[in-house]
Amino acid sequence: MNKKKVVLAYSGGLDTSYCVKYLSEERGLEIHSVLVNTGGFSQQELDEVEKRAYAMGVTSHKTIEETSNYYSSVIKYLIFGNILKNSTYPLSVSAERVSQAMAIAKYAKTLNPEYIAHGSTGAGNDQVRFDMIFQTYLPDAEIITPIRDMRLSREEEIAYLQSKGVDMDFSKSAYSINKGLWGTSVGGKETLSSKGYLPEEAWPTQVTKTVEEDLELGFVKGELKSINGTEFTHSYEAIQALEKIAAPFGIGRDIHVGDTIIGIKGRVGFEASAAILTIKAHQALEKHILTKWQIYWKDQVAAFYGNWLHEGQFMDPVMRDLESMMESSQKFVTGKAFFKLLPYRYQLIGIESEHDLMSAKFGNYGEMNNAWTGDDVKGFAKIFGNQSAIYHQVNQEND
Amino acid sequence: MNKKKVVLAYSGGLDTSYCVKYLSEERGLEIHSVLVNTGGFSQQELDEVEKRAYAMGVTSHKTIEETSNYYSSVIKYLIFGNILKNSTYPLSVSAERVSQAMAIAKYAKTLNPEYIAHGSTGAGNDQVRFDMIFQTYLPDAEIITPIRDMRLSREEEIAYLQSKGVDMDFSKSAYSINKGLWGTSVGGKETLSSKGYLPEEAWPTQVTKTVEEDLELGFVKGELKSINGTEFTHSYEAIQALEKIAAPFGIGRDIHVGDTIIGIKGRVGFEASAAILTIKAHQALEKHILTKWQIYWKDQVAAFYGNWLHEGQFMDPVMRDLESMMESSQKFVTGKAFFKLLPYRYQLIGIESEHDLMSAKFGNYGEMNNAWTGDDVKGFAKIFGNQSAIYHQVNQEND
Amino acid sequence: MNKKKVVLAYSGGLDTSYCVKYLSEERGLEIHSVLVNTGGFSQQELDEVEKRAYAMGVTSHKTIEETSNYYSSVIKYLIFGNILKNSTYPLSVSAERVSQAMAIAKYAKTLNPEYIAHGSTGAGNDQVRFDMIFQTYLPDAEIITPIRDMRLSREEEIAYLQSKGVDMDFSKSAYSINKGLWGTSVGGKETLSSKGYLPEEAWPTQVTKTVEEDLELGFVKGELKSINGTEFTHSYEAIQALEKIAAPFGIGRDIHVGDTIIGIKGRVGFEASAAILTIKAHQALEKHILTKWQIYWKDQVAAFYGNWLHEGQFMDPVMRDLESMMESSQKFVTGKAFFKLLPYRYQLIGIESEHDLMSAKFGNYGEMNNAWTGDDVKGFAKIFGNQSAIYHQVNQEND
Amino acid sequence: MNKKKVVLAYSGGLDTSYCVKYLSEERGLEIHSVLVNTGGFSQQELDEVEKRAYAMGVTSHKTIEETSNYYSSVIKYLIFGNILKNSTYPLSVSAERVSQAMAIAKYAKTLNPEYIAHGSTGAGNDQVRFDMIFQTYLPDAEIITPIRDMRLSREEEIAYLQSKGVDMDFSKSAYSINKGLWGTSVGGKETLSSKGYLPEEAWPTQVTKTVEEDLELGFVKGELKSINGTEFTHSYEAIQALEKIAAPFGIGRDIHVGDTIIGIKGRVGFEASAAILTIKAHQALEKHILTKWQIYWKDQVAAFYGNWLHEGQFMDPVMRDLESMMESSQKFVTGKAFFKLLPYRYQLIGIESEHDLMSAKFGNYGEMNNAWTGDDVKGFAKIFGNQSAIYHQVNQEND
Repeated sequence: MNKKKVVLAYSGGLDTSYCVKYLSEERGLEIHSVLVNTGGFSQQELDEVEKRAYAMGVTSHKTIEETSNYYSSVIKYLIFGNILKNSTYPLSVSAERVSQAMAIAKYAKTLNPEYIAHGSTGAGNDQVRFDMIFQTYLPDAEIITPIRDMRLSREEEIAYLQSKGVDMDFSKSAYSINKGLWGTSVGGKETLSSKGYLPEEAWPTQVTKTVEEDLELGFVKGELKSINGTEFTHSYEAIQALEKIAAPFGIGRDIHVGDTIIGIKGRVGFEASAAILTIKAHQALEKHILTKWQIYWKDQVAAFYGNWLHEGQFMDPVMRDLESMMESSQKFVTGKAFFKLLPYRYQLIGIESEHDLMSAKFGNYGEMNNAWTGDDVKGFAKIFGNQSAIYHQVNQEND
Repeated sequence: MNKKKVVLAYSGGLDTSYCVKYLSEERGLEIHSVLVNTGGFSQQELDEVEKRAYAMGVTSHKTIEETSNYYSSVIKYLIFGNILKNSTYPLSVSAERVSQAMAIAKYAKTLNPEYIAHGSTGAGNDQVRFDMIFQTYLPDAEIITPIRDMRLSREEEIAYLQSKGVDMDFSKSAYSINKGLWGTSVGGKETLSSKGYLPEEAWPTQVTKTVEEDLELGFVKGELKSINGTEFTHSYEAIQALEKIAAPFGIGRDIHVGDTIIGIKGRVGFEASAAILTIKAHQALEKHILTKWQIYWKDQVAAFYGNWLHEGQFMDPVMRDLESMMESSQKFVTGKAFFKLLPYRYQLIGIESEHDLMSAKFGNYGEMNNAWTGDDVKGFAKIFGNQSAIYHQVNQEND
Repeated sequence: MNKKKVVLAYSGGLDTSYCVKYLSEERGLEIHSVLVNTGGFSQQELDEVEKRAYAMGVTSHKTIEETSNYYSSVIKYLIFGNILKNSTYPLSVSAERVSQAMAIAKYAKTLNPEYIAHGSTGAGNDQVRFDMIFQTYLPDAEIITPIRDMRLSREEEIAYLQSKGVDMDFSKSAYSINKGLWGTSVGGKETLSSKGYLPEEAWPTQVTKTVEEDLELGFVKGELKSINGTEFTHSYEAIQALEKIAAPFGIGRDIHVGDTIIGIKGRVGFEASAAILTIKAHQALEKHILTKWQIYWKDQVAAFYGNWLHEGQFMDPVMRDLESMMESSQKFVTGKAFFKLLPYRYQLIGIESEHDLMSAKFGNYGEMNNAWTGDDVKGFAKIFGNQSAIYHQVNQEND
Repeated sequence: MNKKKVVLAYSGGLDTSYCVKYLSEERGLEIHSVLVNTGGFSQQELDEVEKRAYAMGVTSHKTIEETSNYYSSVIKYLIFGNILKNSTYPLSVSAERVSQAMAIAKYAKTLNPEYIAHGSTGAGNDQVRFDMIFQTYLPDAEIITPIRDMRLSREEEIAYLQSKGVDMDFSKSAYSINKGLWGTSVGGKETLSSKGYLPEEAWPTQVTKTVEEDLELGFVKGELKSINGTEFTHSYEAIQALEKIAAPFGIGRDIHVGDTIIGIKGRVGFEASAAILTIKAHQALEKHILTKWQIYWKDQVAAFYGNWLHEGQFMDPVMRDLESMMESSQKFVTGKAFFKLLPYRYQLIGIESEHDLMSAKFGNYGEMNNAWTGDDVKGFAKIFGNQSAIYHQVNQEND
């Protein structure tokens, strides 16, 4: 008799290792493990995960290199929208998880499995993202989530794996880290309550640069394409290069507080120097290049886009509509932004762009010019304030 | 024959000094000068301005102490809305000018003048703010703006005043400064183009603190009421005290780029340590205390509120509607925020509040609890993603 | 041994009758039934339901007269916001169910029951509304939903009740009706698919008026207070009186298509002449009385308010914030609207209000006046279009 | 000596006839008149205008046939957005005037004139639209507006023209009419005040159809492409055909009240049966085809788009961004809508579409199905209401 197939989102960690043994030995399934790299794994790490997967007994293991696609389908729009959730967080993990879930689901479709599994617990956001994207892509496959379904504790998982003779590193580090193209999250005891800052040693990148550096970021139609004059074919490579430059300054560290999908509040540290600098540079260009209402509407839409992505709703077609709007706005967002980097901070020096609307040709702010007269502004103020003036005359409430 | 009356917004500077002489000698008007203090003037400066006004020949001079009212009618809502225009600027000058224009207009109404005058040029935002608020409050008074109407240059104004025997300091400083409760703006040659940062010496407050300090800000219903345990009756006094603590760290400096009311882009430096820290503290509390959609809607509304205030439309009754909404949201925004201050930067350590929704009682993020089960979340994800899943099944576009 | 208590939302229909017998006989609970009247029941009907409840064996039965409170806590804001979901539906049932659930929950709290029960199936919106409001008010009471939990069919329920000797009318009508203050919904075979209009006989009120009538609706601060000169102390009574006048014209009939809370699309007929005319009158007044941006923002906010109410999220405090904003906007919405009623349609003739901004004093549209000059408008157009003109000069894309 | 050139927006009416004589005889300019047809003129009328232009003394006259382009650059998006300003008005005249101004400006650019002229008075919206679009396209041409600049009365214009020997029909009709592809506006004494309905004879199309008709409108990606099974290559032709079918029923008549660009309120009647039916059909399809948040966002964006178009800001690039979003949403808006037409009203019977999300496959509303269980919804409600429940437990305010 043929075994039924399960595709398993596998990272090589404790939870998904448990899933391999459980799905194979207790459920009798043929396991096809898959790992999606969105920039957080080195080749050596990927090789080790693959080796471990086969050692655990999977029938096949697939590594999907998704970084480029992750950038172009998600990160790009986070930059277009200058999206920092709650004015702070570049959505490092949210964006990555959604991208991974979609890559897994697309791959799974080619195998036509009876089941699809992930190692999420019942306590976080990821379970919702995986569930929703899997059920959309594979409506006929049943989703299995052993850790969530059996409410397993860490200790129970370890005991089970040891009973099956699995030998892996079961130690728990003081800070849980999730590394990806758009930033690294850091959780620890300080982030479990509402007050407390991460200690210096908890940050993934230690501050080793103490001498200030100039930085020039070049954009073409809203995408990061050059750093200090060096051009990059792929923007995701520019992002990776920028991270190497800026992270040793300790730039881009902060703590995010926000609403989880399941309704509670959560707090997490993150280090995202490339994300923060890219967004600040991009936004600076836009302040000079876009019209007032372009900025207004992109901001309004981006706030929703970021939230909806965070909540795993990336496949709602409204996201494509909002992306079209953001894409349209980038037509002329081409130019350079200049920074000075210093330990733990940076200065935004300014921008240069052919599309800069702040051109002396049209008048410097605060100086008269030939494009309009004081009488024009007088007339403008008269009419611009007309309705409000009428309102107060009618209603006599300004006394 | 009785002279006709003009109320003149008077600051004691070159432009408004010109106005006094011009309105009196060329137009034959009886001048009632008025200065509104919104936190930028010391008593000594106010006394000097008054003396100078009478020396120039005004019939009466009035000093209006507006700081408290400025706070409660405008600044309070900028805090409730966490308003930083273009993610940067606390609207220091915009808010102040609107508040001053209203105080002048209210005072002018009591004199029932034939004219009301201000010293704005035809090149900036202030002319629009003054015009619109004056025409609303005093629809029957004619607005006179000598500098704008005659397109006078600085040199022409000086020559005229000298010809009238006026003796004052006609020198021009390298950086133009506007100081008020909610921050000090700094304009200079670096801010006239799109690229360039202000030099250290241009900033109004020099960095003299180098040893880190802890800071605790206490809020009651969204208003700053205590600093490091010291309570303040009036929030505007707390803001003034906070400025003294934080400004010597060089915190709250930045350069704002934005759209002027007249359609061009403008750039200006500002130093606003109290405004920045107050907003960051307030926003941190709200992230813990408000629901997801309270934050979302307040952000959407605040962006418009800030823009509309900036454009001098404070008297549009829609502003009252949006204030009501923001006020409502502050019901439980009571608690403390904690910072560490360092030279040129700060760390937000966290918050404490009885109204914190991130309570361990309801489950820590990432840990299971008794308030809901994994099955609940499973069902949630099923239904939450239902429409998107149906959409893709109907339209088969996810391949 | 004392029986455990359950509070049951009881309507006297098949589903909730089943619940009484099941909760009592199979679960051994002491039943406290409660019915909330939001305008859909006559006193005679209420008495009959009470009699039946006791006959079925409940320990206590409570009738809550909620119409006035329903109006002032929900309907009022639907009028302030001119809320017609998807441009069509006054949210007749959504609003009512939320109001009922809250009244039941408040009553239940006084009894401190171990359980709270409702008769919803697993297929509709109401289950979500009841669940969410019950769990918020009574976090410690377990929610029981027998029909949903056991996936009972109509036939199974009837069989069970007959086996228990219950004698009631088990016949099913061709159209299911839900009647309340804010309209009556009508579902039938025509609304189960995407195409089909309800037949004349399916509408609850038959068209008996054929001679046109004039109608004058008077509002005070946004609330309906008089009809054809007759004043009402309570607006909900005015709404009831208006329904009597307009329903026999066949006004206010339509079919709503929209998103259910559970992600599928639904379609339902409704008859809501008072709701439609009240909203149209109110909106007409606002077009004359509110400023442009007051209308804009109220519309934006109302769309969300309506959706969020529909989805049972009435207790999210963001709803209070939005209500504050809407309330603020009603300060001057006082005046009269005039209609002509005809069979199946109406004409809106116009409005009268002291607060009408369309006053000839400030100029008739299309005619010159003294409030501003052609030169003022010329200057206005110059500045109003300044940014767009600069944009096109910089980017040369208008050819 | 060569005369300087002026391009004149010419309609053949009193105001623009005055302009021809004035610009030629008083200003000595070489006049190039241009008329843009956006669907309101017959060929015969166009020929007559041309003949009259030459008779008045223009150097050249140009007729631009703009209907197709008007549809594809403006009307299409008004349909995508279901735009009815203030829930009523399809923006018939606003859209047309903007389209005409752009066509004139593009044509004028080819002549490189020193001046560009229009016949607007200083009292309406059109002057702002013409000014803003002309100054954007031809920043170096001076705009001349004789009627506005000289504040001419009708009588003064007639006297002048008669003094120049011009013989034309100087009589004034009781109702001023503006006819175009997207509707006909009707102004008269009833619309000058806030109360009053237009009499039957004032409406451009008299009601001649009394027998009900079925109507089927077919859409492809949001555009009207067929009527009762007859396909149209160009949607604007379908709109013209639909107008012929529906106008004789008296459908699409109403009175619009709204904010003019210059700050006062205005009121105008309109007859727009094709616009109203096209939008209602399109919106009905979208209710079935788009997801909840697609509808929500398109509505939010469309409200602004309509206002900004109305105010002549069509050339702001934000309009292109919003159009991109609306365009994206139309991907699957393909299907048919069904109506019954009756005198003065219509019934929307329903829709048919392959992309209808209301498919029995996924469960009928109110009936159980296999796509999800009651337990799923239970879990959904638990989590969906989680934050609100936590909020109330923390803040104890629901008593």
